[in-house]
Amino acid sequence: MQLKSTQIEQLTKVFETIVNLVDEVTLKVEPEGISIRAMDPAHVALVDFEMKKEAFDEYKLEEPVELTVDLKTVVNVLKRVEQELVIKLKEGENVLVILSEGAVKKRFNIPLIESAEESLKIPGIEFETVVELDSSLFKNAIADTSIIGDYATVKVEGDALFFSSKSDENVVEIRIDKENCISFKKNDAKSHFSLEYLKDMAKVADIKTLNKAKLSLGNDLPLRLEFEGDYTRLLFFLAPRVEAD
Amino acid sequence: MQLKSTQIEQLTKVFETIVNLVDEVTLKVEPEGISIRAMDPAHVALVDFEMKKEAFDEYKLEEPVELTVDLKTVVNVLKRVEQELVIKLKEGENVLVILSEGAVKKRFNIPLIESAEESLKIPGIEFETVVELDSSLFKNAIADTSIIGDYATVKVEGDALFFSSKSDENVVEIRIDKENCISFKKNDAKSHFSLEYLKDMAKVADIKTLNKAKLSLGNDLPLRLEFEGDYTRLLFFLAPRVEAD
Amino acid sequence: MQLKSTQIEQLTKVFETIVNLVDEVTLKVEPEGISIRAMDPAHVALVDFEMKKEAFDEYKLEEPVELTVDLKTVVNVLKRVEQELVIKLKEGENVLVILSEGAVKKRFNIPLIESAEESLKIPGIEFETVVELDSSLFKNAIADTSIIGDYATVKVEGDALFFSSKSDENVVEIRIDKENCISFKKNDAKSHFSLEYLKDMAKVADIKTLNKAKLSLGNDLPLRLEFEGDYTRLLFFLAPRVEAD
Repeated sequence: MQLKSTQIEQLTKVFETIVNLVDEVTLKVEPEGISIRAMDPAHVALVDFEMKKEAFDEYKLEEPVELTVDLKTVVNVLKRVEQELVIKLKEGENVLVILSEGAVKKRFNIPLIESAEESLKIPGIEFETVVELDSSLFKNAIADTSIIGDYATVKVEGDALFFSSKSDENVVEIRIDKENCISFKKNDAKSHFSLEYLKDMAKVADIKTLNKAKLSLGNDLPLRLEFEGDYTRLLFFLAPRVEAD
Repeated sequence: MQLKSTQIEQLTKVFETIVNLVDEVTLKVEPEGISIRAMDPAHVALVDFEMKKEAFDEYKLEEPVELTVDLKTVVNVLKRVEQELVIKLKEGENVLVILSEGAVKKRFNIPLIESAEESLKIPGIEFETVVELDSSLFKNAIADTSIIGDYATVKVEGDALFFSSKSDENVVEIRIDKENCISFKKNDAKSHFSLEYLKDMAKVADIKTLNKAKLSLGNDLPLRLEFEGDYTRLLFFLAPRVEAD
Repeated sequence: MQLKSTQIEQLTKVFETIVNLVDEVTLKVEPEGISIRAMDPAHVALVDFEMKKEAFDEYKLEEPVELTVDLKTVVNVLKRVEQELVIKLKEGENVLVILSEGAVKKRFNIPLIESAEESLKIPGIEFETVVELDSSLFKNAIADTSIIGDYATVKVEGDALFFSSKSDENVVEIRIDKENCISFKKNDAKSHFSLEYLKDMAKVADIKTLNKAKLSLGNDLPLRLEFEGDYTRLLFFLAPRVEAD
């Protein structure tokens, strides 16, 4: 296996987002591309990441492999890669080799970990409410909502998407009208989510190629939050907090 | 009551300065403008802030009101306001409503608190020494003085304004000559003040419209420190530390 | 004694680097220039700094003096100096006077401390391996190596300089080929050093005038690390960690 890329920033930033949710991940390297599916320890959020082989300059693969690694170490390594990234497996050893090819040659060996993860399924929910908007609008709305309270109510009502939160008697409510959204498949829906998780997920807005956020919602249903780029897809499912009013 | 403004930055920065001194404040909204007068819990510093109604784009008021709020929450809210700020009272309820009017509509409800504050009087001291200088010169002098010791001696002697501090045998002394001041009403004076308070007050220098600091001084008298803009006035009184030599 | 300079930044940054290693230093002021030689409390690193009198605009000296000071205080003072720096001794008193001459006059008195330091000798090691490279390449390699493990193996092998580190089974190895170095006096050499010290020393790369790093190496020998500018020389010796494999 040998993968090469000069587009290191996007991969680094995606992994930085995922590492907020989960420490160890299994990177699946398959003929069509690489993918990660993982759930946070509290089983509140699921992340599903795909990067097609077209996103790489070189994508050589003898057979599909699964590489379980400590994601924090991988992120720290990727931040130090300049110019060209090469990822390969050290033959006969349980070690992932990450090379930074430039004037200065850098080699990072990261040991593979035994995977403890069972196979995760994407929830097969049919959502009747789907709103697409600029990632930055989404990120800002989450930042606004976060100044008061610990969880957000995300709601579609009439022709607008609402984010709101309460704490003591303080209230914040953000309204984004349909005309400020990219697409708006209407159907009233309302659920409550942890702002801590939403803030981590909203960091994806800093990845230039993932500048659209697609929210799928229902009543007391999980949030399906999708960011899609040319060869990249980052999908989150976030469990609702039903106890909230 | 309904107030509107597109000049949100100045109000936010003034409130950020005041919140260093006091948690809860009573905002008086009167026909001629808004004002805050408050004292820190240790009764060392008094702040008096006024913003004339002309600073607002819209200033509608049926009758004067007093709004006691948690200032930290108000500051956090103001930082999230874009384009246009609207402040109003929720009829029949003890709630201040702050709106951010733009493409994204934001509504923040902040509960009013029962005021525990007695009426505060501005000390009626006649100062014979008054020095006016650039806020940035004042802020820098306080920063210089802060590297050594916990309190500053502020002194006018001859044709110069001095800031000095001591700790162990370390000494710092800053001299700003009369010709580097905007105005200089001379009379020797010397008092000692807490640098912690002075540093908080000096942050006003970051507000562009309040670029002049007027210091009124005496011998072991409070410091009267005034920043004045077109429609805004921020006045501090700071008690002297008489025990210092 | 009176020294004057308008090039305050370099002196400040050099002192900021030295203060990471040692709290109190003895500044020797001699006819040819000023110098500091000091060792960290753990006796792992020695620093030797020289600045020739030509680096000063005025260099008046009646007789050589040794000034032992708290370096952190001196650094804090130098950071507050604008335009022109003047350093002099207060006659008859054990006080160093640092003046900042500009529109605002600043005077800082720093008490001299009784020196507890014995005289330090520069190790007289003959190194057969000497590599000179851009300070920034060196700083980057140390930053790369630091992401894994606590000590670095610095090695010259064949035509390349290597920095590597291990932790658990994670490995990082940085290779800088001879052609990316300024000069390369070859002889295989390998020693291990504390990354904490190397990181502090690598901060010198931020001083524009000291943009070349000269590393002298041996097998399990100290590292001699020299940064040289027009009138300035900053030399470090760092003891090897022999216990490492």
